[in-house]
Amino acid sequence: MKKIINDPQHYVEDMLRGIYAAHPSVTYAADDLHCYCTAHPKEGKVAIITGGGTGHLPLFLGYVGDGMLDGCGVGGVFQSPSAEQICEVARKVNGGKGILFLYGNYTGDIMNFDMAAEMLDFDGIETKSIVGADDVLSNANPDARRGIAGIFFMYKCAGAKAAQGGSLEEVLASAQRAKDNTRTVGFALTPCIIPEVGHPNFELKENEMAMGMGIHGEPGVWNGPIKTADELAAESLDFILKDMSVSAGEEVCVLINGLGATSKEELYILYNSVQEILKKKDIAIYRSFVGEYATSMEMAGASITLCRVADKEMKAEIDYPVNTPFYTQI
Amino acid sequence: MKKIINDPQHYVEDMLRGIYAAHPSVTYAADDLHCYCTAHPKEGKVAIITGGGTGHLPLFLGYVGDGMLDGCGVGGVFQSPSAEQICEVARKVNGGKGILFLYGNYTGDIMNFDMAAEMLDFDGIETKSIVGADDVLSNANPDARRGIAGIFFMYKCAGAKAAQGGSLEEVLASAQRAKDNTRTVGFALTPCIIPEVGHPNFELKENEMAMGMGIHGEPGVWNGPIKTADELAAESLDFILKDMSVSAGEEVCVLINGLGATSKEELYILYNSVQEILKKKDIAIYRSFVGEYATSMEMAGASITLCRVADKEMKAEIDYPVNTPFYTQI
Repeated sequence: MKKIINDPQHYVEDMLRGIYAAHPSVTYAADDLHCYCTAHPKEGKVAIITGGGTGHLPLFLGYVGDGMLDGCGVGGVFQSPSAEQICEVARKVNGGKGILFLYGNYTGDIMNFDMAAEMLDFDGIETKSIVGADDVLSNANPDARRGIAGIFFMYKCAGAKAAQGGSLEEVLASAQRAKDNTRTVGFALTPCIIPEVGHPNFELKENEMAMGMGIHGEPGVWNGPIKTADELAAESLDFILKDMSVSAGEEVCVLINGLGATSKEELYILYNSVQEILKKKDIAIYRSFVGEYATSMEMAGASITLCRVADKEMKAEIDYPVNTPFYTQI
Repeated sequence: MKKIINDPQHYVEDMLRGIYAAHPSVTYAADDLHCYCTAHPKEGKVAIITGGGTGHLPLFLGYVGDGMLDGCGVGGVFQSPSAEQICEVARKVNGGKGILFLYGNYTGDIMNFDMAAEMLDFDGIETKSIVGADDVLSNANPDARRGIAGIFFMYKCAGAKAAQGGSLEEVLASAQRAKDNTRTVGFALTPCIIPEVGHPNFELKENEMAMGMGIHGEPGVWNGPIKTADELAAESLDFILKDMSVSAGEEVCVLINGLGATSKEELYILYNSVQEILKKKDIAIYRSFVGEYATSMEMAGASITLCRVADKEMKAEIDYPVNTPFYTQI
């Protein structure tokens, strides 16, 4: 296992200590490093809380900051945070206007966020929940799909709406609109290693890749020889556009996400392939995002997300400035 | 070779096309994709031009934008741009107040930038040159050292001074002050693969790392079993602080740079080790930078840079806002 770490048992806590030391704009609640919160909760604003397993930076905690999220329950590597941890985050960042839980569609997370919602209800704190489920290839049924990099657009739009003073219903509606218009297809070239395990839990042969593999190594729709960037872009956009129709003349945001080990050079090569196909289809690109937005530690691979820009209000949400320790947009 | 690319011969051009398509704030001169320029050159400002081989994103071109650099000659993978390409960039971004060449201390780059300076002299365009040479372990002689991630602070300070209206002499002085106060130590855990070659040009065994290895795979000071983050931080800071003394009570910026495949989680674990050691030495951290600033494609590893904050003027330069397609600081 080639990692720069100390005791694998302290992986998450060492990482969190580093993040808190580097970034005074974030802190933790209840004396628990896993209860990650903005250092300056805003009174009278809907608070947005996410959460999930460690190993996906900047997902999930990296989007806590001005114009985006207010807190994050941080689990172990690829594990859900506890309901109690989510509650502590909620109590700390609650601005009295209700709380939106916005996280990925995974069984453990759903269980803990639902339990937290019940516990907060006893405290008189109102919550609504929505899950990201943008991974087209993870299930034919949209409700059963996993959430991957496309959750970025839900964070972006809901975060902007909350910062603009929206009500809990309005913030939820912004997240829902982003969800309805976002689809992702991803593919992996190598596995990654959970530090406490010390070896990959599956293998990909030299020259083998996995189309549709999830960010925890969930199996995809095919394993086979590595295709070119042009072929991967064409196949991925086919999957996406069969699931969500985008007409000529419409606008989309494009997010090219690296899974960890894949270089920025390759991400831009892939972006180039994607934009050439969209140009031929007369689909305009409103805004582009290329980089690491949702990773699997040192996994090699990438994902392609399209977010159809539904209307002017959504444009304003996408363009709203953000300042977090991991993501800045002006 | 597990890369998301098309024809390896078109690697650099495919990447550049993607970058230009994604980011309208940059363009190219002389009908040559390798002549990378800001789309909005500023009249009456000292222009700063960098350059170097491809394969190190966001180095070098990623720092072209508001508050930092004006242009970049883009070479092939690990190859210098030509003198002619550097000249074309200079002609395009020249604001009539002189041009600073600021690049890494590599033979091919020096040859081509020096030749470009001579050619521009014929055109009546004044240039000054300075090279980044922050890699402590690359040579005992400071003038013979290679430039690696620490060049970021030279870009940052010189870019701020130029944006603030400084003269060519003043911009050069800011770059020199940043250089004098910056030291880096890096280490690699895996090699990377030049696309046109298709296989690594050296190997590191399972559990083997290379202390002091350069960003093109230049040999370091020792190869051996992988050490812990705490050990690597202690050894690296020892090398740095023996070379540049920093007293208790002084302030430094810390840059933890990932070489490509190393996860952000590990970079923050390493940052945590570094900040604990500095705290014990009573050295204060003025500002922290953790992420990918100078990579070697999919190489695993990291580097640690300290930049001693010399005075108030340097603080203002470090804090000056930046907006480039690859780096935003507000």
